[in-house]
Amino acid sequence: TIDEQRFRQRFDEFNEIGATDAGGVDRPTLSDENKAARDTLVEWFREAELDVRIDEMGNIFGRREGRDPDASTVLFGSHVDSQYNGGRYDGVVGVLGALEAIEALTDAGIETDRPLEIVAWSNEEGVRFQPDMLGSGVYTGVFDLEYAYRREDKDGKRFGDELERIGYKGEDPCEPGDLHCYFELHVEQGPFLEQADLSVGVVEGVFGFSWMNVAFEGQANHAGPTPMTMRRDAFVATADVTKAVREITATEGTDLVGTVGSVDVWPNSINVIPERVEFTIDCRSYDNAVVDAAVERVQDEIAWAAEREGLEYEFEEIMRVDADPFDDECIETVAEAADEAGCEYTRLVSGAGHDANYLNKIAPTSMIFVPSVDGISHRESEYTEWEDVVTGAEVLLRAVRKQATA
Amino acid sequence: TIDEQRFRQRFDEFNEIGATDAGGVDRPTLSDENKAARDTLVEWFREAELDVRIDEMGNIFGRREGRDPDASTVLFGSHVDSQYNGGRYDGVVGVLGALEAIEALTDAGIETDRPLEIVAWSNEEGVRFQPDMLGSGVYTGVFDLEYAYRREDKDGKRFGDELERIGYKGEDPCEPGDLHCYFELHVEQGPFLEQADLSVGVVEGVFGFSWMNVAFEGQANHAGPTPMTMRRDAFVATADVTKAVREITATEGTDLVGTVGSVDVWPNSINVIPERVEFTIDCRSYDNAVVDAAVERVQDEIAWAAEREGLEYEFEEIMRVDADPFDDECIETVAEAADEAGCEYTRLVSGAGHDANYLNKIAPTSMIFVPSVDGISHRESEYTEWEDVVTGAEVLLRAVRKQATA
Ligand SMILES: NC(=O)NCCC(=O)O
Ligand SMILES: NC(=O)NCCC(=O)O
Repeated sequence: TIDEQRFRQRFDEFNEIGATDAGGVDRPTLSDENKAARDTLVEWFREAELDVRIDEMGNIFGRREGRDPDASTVLFGSHVDSQYNGGRYDGVVGVLGALEAIEALTDAGIETDRPLEIVAWSNEEGVRFQPDMLGSGVYTGVFDLEYAYRREDKDGKRFGDELERIGYKGEDPCEPGDLHCYFELHVEQGPFLEQADLSVGVVEGVFGFSWMNVAFEGQANHAGPTPMTMRRDAFVATADVTKAVREITATEGTDLVGTVGSVDVWPNSINVIPERVEFTIDCRSYDNAVVDAAVERVQDEIAWAAEREGLEYEFEEIMRVDADPFDDECIETVAEAADEAGCEYTRLVSGAGHDANYLNKIAPTSMIFVPSVDGISHRESEYTEWEDVVTGAEVLLRAVRKQATA
Repeated sequence: TIDEQRFRQRFDEFNEIGATDAGGVDRPTLSDENKAARDTLVEWFREAELDVRIDEMGNIFGRREGRDPDASTVLFGSHVDSQYNGGRYDGVVGVLGALEAIEALTDAGIETDRPLEIVAWSNEEGVRFQPDMLGSGVYTGVFDLEYAYRREDKDGKRFGDELERIGYKGEDPCEPGDLHCYFELHVEQGPFLEQADLSVGVVEGVFGFSWMNVAFEGQANHAGPTPMTMRRDAFVATADVTKAVREITATEGTDLVGTVGSVDVWPNSINVIPERVEFTIDCRSYDNAVVDAAVERVQDEIAWAAEREGLEYEFEEIMRVDADPFDDECIETVAEAADEAGCEYTRLVSGAGHDANYLNKIAPTSMIFVPSVDGISHRESEYTEWEDVVTGAEVLLRAVRKQATA
C-alpha cells in the first residue's frame, strides 16, 4: 500500500512551486515554474532509482525494469503543467500517485514481470500553446514534431524554442516503445462522483471535442455619430454566436457542452465600435455525430452573423478529437483493482480531455477518477479530499501491478 | 483669410508626432507623444506672440489681447489628445485651425475689441482616462479637480501623476475667466455632411450620453466536464446584454445609438468557463428622455441576465451628459460666417461628445463641423478633404471676428 505520509509531503512540496496566494498553482507549460516542477520530478525519479529519460517533446519518463527483459511496458502517469492560476490536483495527482505506486512496490520488494514506466506529458492543458495534449499527441503520431515545435503562445513564442529555453528538449525520439497498456489517475473535474458519494470512477472513455478559433473583422468607428444602420460591429456578431452556442447545447437528449472561453476585442475602447474580435469555441460530447452536428451548426451561425453584420470572418477548427471507448480489459482491470482496494466505484465517461485518449489509439488504456469537490477544476479552488487522492493511488497501484504481472 | 500653406505645413508637421504606420496618430492623453504634441503647440503659440498659460488640468491657453481691456473673452479651440491609433483630424483641426485664425487676423493687422483665446483641452477622448472631456469638465465645474486627478488608466496610473510626469500640471486655476462665448471647429465624425455633399455644418447641439461600466462575476470551471445546467458563465450574460443593447437601439423613431466597445474576460482560456467579464456600454440620443429610458432598460437586462445565469454584477454609470441645445446667437453667428465665407451649409446635431457641450453650460457656444469621409473617425483611416478643413477654419475665423468685435 501507498505510503500516505510521503505522498502527502511530496504533494505539498511540489505545490509550493508556482503557488498562488489564493491556494492554487501557476505553472503553465514551459514557464519557469513548469521547469522547476519538472526539475523536482526528475530529482524524485532519480531518488526512486528510476531510469530517467526526456524525449524531444519534453515528455519525462521514469522507468523500473521488470523481470522479463522482452516484455512490453506498462505506462502510467499524467501531466505537471497547469492552467494559468489553476488548481493543485489537476495532473499532479496522477504523476505523484504513479511515483508512489512504484515506490510502494519497491518498498514491499515486489518485482513485476513487465517494466513499469511513469510519464509526465508536456502541455496537456493547452492554454498557453494550442492544441492541448500536445506531448501525448506527438508520441502517438497524431501530430508531427515540427508542427508541435511551431505552436506559438499569445506573445509569439514557439513551443520548440521555449522547450529548449527551459532545458527540456530531450534527445530521445518522441514515439512509443513497446507498450503493453496505459493507465492514468486524474481528478474528475466534474460533479458526478461527488453527487454519487463515491471515491473512485472507472473511466470508460473521453468525450470527443472540437476547438474552434473564430475572428470577425468589421469596421471601427465612433460610437456616437455612427448611425446604427452603418455599423459593422464585430462584437455584436460575437454575441450572436455565443448565444447560438448556448442554444445548441440545450438540444434535448444530448450531452453536448459548448463554451466561448477566450475573447479579445480591438481596439477595446469605450467609444469605438469593435473592429475585430477573436474568440474560441469549445464543443464536446461523447457522441461524435453530436460534435459534428454542433460544429456545422456553429459554422452556419458564424456565417449568418457575419453576413447580417457585414463582416469578414475567419474560422479554423484547430483541434478535433473523437470519442473512442477505452479498452474493455483495462476498464475491467481498474474495476477489479477498485474492488481489491475495497472501495465502491461507478463507471463514467470524462468530459475533460486527457492524454489517455490519445494513448488509447496505440495501446489498451483506461483511467481512474477521484472526485472533485463541487465539480470545480481549472481554478485555484480546485479541491479533492486527501483520502480520495490516496484511494485513487491505491487503485492505480493495483491496476498497474495486475497488468505488469504475467 | 487663412494662410493655406502654413496651415498645411503645420498640420503635417504636427501629425508626425506619434505617427503610426497606417497613417494615423497615437497620442493618448498624457502619453509621451501627447507631451510632444503639447510642446509643439506651446512653441507655435509663442511664435504667434500669444500669451501662453497652462492650468491645473493641463489645459493650454494662448491669448491675444483686445482693444478693450474690460471686455470678456472669445474662447475657441479643441483638443490634441488622440484615440489609441486614432486619426489625424479629430481635435487637431480645431486647435491648429484656431491658431491660423488668430494668425490670419494678426497678419492682416486686424485688432479686435475683445481678447481672443485659443484652448487645447486635456483628455477629450476619454479612452485612457474616463470620463472624457475631463479638462473642460473641471473648467466648467462639472467635476472637481481632485476627482479628475484620481482618474486611473488600466495600469492604475493616475491622471494627476501622469500630468505632473509630462510637466503639464500648470499653476493657473482651472476655472473660466470672463467668457463672452466659445466656438469649436471639429470633424463631423458622422456621415451626414458627406451624404449632403456640403463642406460645413452649423452645429445646433450635442447628443446626450451615458457611459456605463458593467462587471459580471460567475464561476470559472472546466469547459468539458461541467454540465450546462451547472454553469455560471459571465460571458454568456455579456452576450445577452450586448444583444439587448442592439435591440433597444432599433426602437422605431428614435436616434438612439448603443455600443459595447470594451470587453475584458477572465481567465480568457479556451477551455475555462469565463468567471468574470468587465465591459462598457455607450448610449446616446439628442433626446435626454430616450437616454434615460435606455439606461433603465439596460439595467433591467443586466439584472435579468445575471439572475438567469446565477451571477453577481456591478453596474456603474460613470458618466452622464445631457443634450442641451447650443446658444441661438452663436449658432446664427456660425451660419452668417459660413455665408460670408461663401459656402453652403446645413444645420445638424453632433453624435460625438465635445468640450463645447460643457462650455455651453457656462457661456454661449456653437460649433463648426467639416465632413468626415465615409463617416469614419477614431481610427487611422479618418480623413477630411483638405479644402474642407480650410473652409472650416475660414468659417471659424469669421465667427470669432464677429463676436470679438463690439
Ligand atoms: N483534463 C484536462 O483538464 N484537460 C485539459 C484539456 C481539456 O480537456 O480541455
Ligand atoms: N468628438 C469625440 O470624438 N469625442 C470623444 C468623446 C466621445 O464622444 O465619445
